[in-house]
Amino acid sequence: MLKAHVSVSLDGFMAGPDVNVEQAMGRGGEDLHAWQFAEQQDPIDREVAAAMFSTATVGAVLMGRRTLDVGIGHWGDDGTFERPCFVVTHRLRAPVVKGATTFTFITDGIDTAVEQARASAGDKDINAMGADVIRHLVAGSIDELSITLVPIILGAGATLLGDLTPNVVQLDQIDARHSATVTHVRYRVRR
Amino acid sequence: MLKAHVSVSLDGFMAGPDVNVEQAMGRGGEDLHAWQFAEQQDPIDREVAAAMFSTATVGAVLMGRRTLDVGIGHWGDDGTFERPCFVVTHRLRAPVVKGATTFTFITDGIDTAVEQARASAGDKDINAMGADVIRHLVAGSIDELSITLVPIILGAGATLLGDLTPNVVQLDQIDARHSATVTHVRYRVRR
Repeated sequence: MLKAHVSVSLDGFMAGPDVNVEQAMGRGGEDLHAWQFAEQQDPIDREVAAAMFSTATVGAVLMGRRTLDVGIGHWGDDGTFERPCFVVTHRLRAPVVKGATTFTFITDGIDTAVEQARASAGDKDINAMGADVIRHLVAGSIDELSITLVPIILGAGATLLGDLTPNVVQLDQIDARHSATVTHVRYRVRR
Repeated sequence: MLKAHVSVSLDGFMAGPDVNVEQAMGRGGEDLHAWQFAEQQDPIDREVAAAMFSTATVGAVLMGRRTLDVGIGHWGDDGTFERPCFVVTHRLRAPVVKGATTFTFITDGIDTAVEQARASAGDKDINAMGADVIRHLVAGSIDELSITLVPIILGAGATLLGDLTPNVVQLDQIDARHSATVTHVRYRVRR
């Protein structure tokens, strides 16, 4: 299954404004992931975070070039993901290998990237990352969208689903759980 | 306490576009309240809906003139609310009485309307309605904001918190529960 998990502010942003290498999540946007990186992590948050990139279930990662560019400096020598990552881009470059993580660049569109990620993931899931990629996939071929609703106000930034056609897809809530600070909801996406 | 409860689409809208008397919630916006008006209502949804306007806890209602104008035709001969309602407006008019519901028009600003609603509500809560009023109050004097996250995509409309100053307030999640179709989350608002 093709899945995405995004943390969203109460005013509907999945990243703050001015995303760049110094602030990969935009201004204030790192607060969206405080639940993932808390020193004393809530048990519910720990479970949800662990499932997002569990090697037992996630076989490949799909992302936009921008997500790679602003993220890779933060992802360490092992590249964090430790599985094949497919990067949608207009500028071809040779694969980047960091430990068990490989970043392969796909220049003929997101649908091709999805195909290659599926082939690579086999029976496992694909985890999609990045505002543009997720928005495109929600209108396209995504099977499941998970959101974590974070009670912060960013005021501006990248919206989760901005400018989609009304009801372009049907979303069915299939699970909801909350920790002390945030709420996690999973939706199945139907066309 | 001054409270508001809004149903929000997954793309962050609390009403669809083109709000008017024929479609008080804007285009597609009535789907935001399907959980409230389902024939076979989920028990969780029933509890949440009942609490929103419980006469045991809510002593007054605060709304904008637009909310009144597009809503009153739908609210029946008893005016639905059966308690004092305060309407923020620029155009003074005489109070409107519908059964146990009175609509009093306040022309000197939302803060005055809040004061009058507080005086009228006594120890009970005030329930604020309408996009502009709620947005103003979130940045102002609201104590609690409840949202119901509804998995529909409206594409356009009135945003829940659009254009607020980043982190103008602190929001603490104090409760979260879900029915089969939607998720209800309550936040305490701190300044």
